[in-house]
Amino acid sequence: MWRFHKPVQGLGAQSLQPVSMSGGIALIQGASRGIGLQFCKYLVSSKHRTTVIATCRDPQAATDLQALKAQHPDVLSIRRLDVTSQSDLQETAQGIEQQFGSLDLLINCAAMLHPSGKGETSLREVSAEGLSQALATNTIGPLLMAKYFSPLLLNGRGAFGAQSSDRSKQHNAVLVNMSAKVGSISDNALGGWYSYRMSKSALNMATKCLSIELGRGKKRVVCVSLHPGTVDTELSRPYHKNVPKEKLFSPERSVSYLMDIIDNLNMERTGKFYAWNGSELPW
Amino acid sequence: MWRFHKPVQGLGAQSLQPVSMSGGIALIQGASRGIGLQFCKYLVSSKHRTTVIATCRDPQAATDLQALKAQHPDVLSIRRLDVTSQSDLQETAQGIEQQFGSLDLLINCAAMLHPSGKGETSLREVSAEGLSQALATNTIGPLLMAKYFSPLLLNGRGAFGAQSSDRSKQHNAVLVNMSAKVGSISDNALGGWYSYRMSKSALNMATKCLSIELGRGKKRVVCVSLHPGTVDTELSRPYHKNVPKEKLFSPERSVSYLMDIIDNLNMERTGKFYAWNGSELPW
Repeated sequence: MWRFHKPVQGLGAQSLQPVSMSGGIALIQGASRGIGLQFCKYLVSSKHRTTVIATCRDPQAATDLQALKAQHPDVLSIRRLDVTSQSDLQETAQGIEQQFGSLDLLINCAAMLHPSGKGETSLREVSAEGLSQALATNTIGPLLMAKYFSPLLLNGRGAFGAQSSDRSKQHNAVLVNMSAKVGSISDNALGGWYSYRMSKSALNMATKCLSIELGRGKKRVVCVSLHPGTVDTELSRPYHKNVPKEKLFSPERSVSYLMDIIDNLNMERTGKFYAWNGSELPW
Repeated sequence: MWRFHKPVQGLGAQSLQPVSMSGGIALIQGASRGIGLQFCKYLVSSKHRTTVIATCRDPQAATDLQALKAQHPDVLSIRRLDVTSQSDLQETAQGIEQQFGSLDLLINCAAMLHPSGKGETSLREVSAEGLSQALATNTIGPLLMAKYFSPLLLNGRGAFGAQSSDRSKQHNAVLVNMSAKVGSISDNALGGWYSYRMSKSALNMATKCLSIELGRGKKRVVCVSLHPGTVDTELSRPYHKNVPKEKLFSPERSVSYLMDIIDNLNMERTGKFYAWNGSELPW
């Protein structure tokens, strides 16, 4: 049985203020490195003290995440989760439900550019295997996360985002799909990177569908796609040489921008695609 | 070796006129039924006399297509092709290259709503298997068709679409991905149908990428996504009871509209998403 928490109270004085309450519960999927790891670092810091559940495929190999847990054993837990395994998803959701009863924030971070590590520069490099693997990780995985964890999100206490003083506009939780500007069809002027672009366009459609399904009841989840900028991570590292220094963000900088956006999300902003600077991106 | 055909000559008198030349070569993928079968019927009719190569997974079972071939054995040929098989794709492309040397039109028609025959009405019905199968048929298949057949399209004679009198704006061929309005992220107001919607959004991104890659050289292919309207086919039949009669098209009516659009395509219209009535749809 899901435990039910009422939406956050006592926010009536000002409308649409970031909640910034401590005690929120966040699930960061794909937390072993890059942006996912940085979200964990940000949320467990003394300022936020969020309870963070970090998932990754191979916790043993996630040495940075293990080190973070050693520093913050009271607020950070790590769970092994392979989103391509339905039994993994079911068991992890049940375990989190039993321990916590609800979630206030889910961020889907795991992604691959292509199994080869390089995006396709032309059709010659396109393969069924590459497309399938990128779609499994970047698209199907996040949607299955939403399937298995949305009951916990719908029971969230609304600890993230900006809550309206109008109860009918409040939300229970926030779901973030980490997308990318290259997943914008309108914005695509260069072509190439077939698998990555297509997987992110499909993910953006998932975000839109989720915002509708999880936005129509009395319990609601704000669902958005976010573009983190060009971030210095393993995924993008082969492509940094032509990026001007000021446009290449550290994970710290990117996540700090993204958390500003998350802190200001509300039901009026659900179903959209935002860049690191808060601007809305076209689909 | 690819045979090279020069772009169509003698069109200088008027710019952007439909070519309507006979003798074009069209490949219709997913031709056993529905819209794909109707494209074949349209193109082999005495008015058009296009050479049509119709592909489907199981020609033996494609009785309507076989009947059409019996009526038009001189212009219609049928080839077995399963787009999930790379060897099938390679062999079919080689066979068509040897026999015809080029293609003027490729229409990717095969699609499924969901392996169950019904689109998901909620997250509860979402599964990795359903998503994977819909993506394999609706998204990966059409892109692999483009990979294997684009060399033949780039050698096309430009027999379809509206050719400019300016040679630098002429195209060699037309590639159509049959998409659907429910694949428009912007237009999605109802949610649900996760697999189908996501597969068509990803296909739309493929169209955009293809329009760029196949539009930048001296040989060029116009690439578009088309929405056929609500058509009375097996795919959509379970959903017809709420469709007003005047909005439910027969395959004949839909294909007649779609061919009007194809007849007016040119390089300025590449990379777009058009509805049956010629209006441009948002991504």
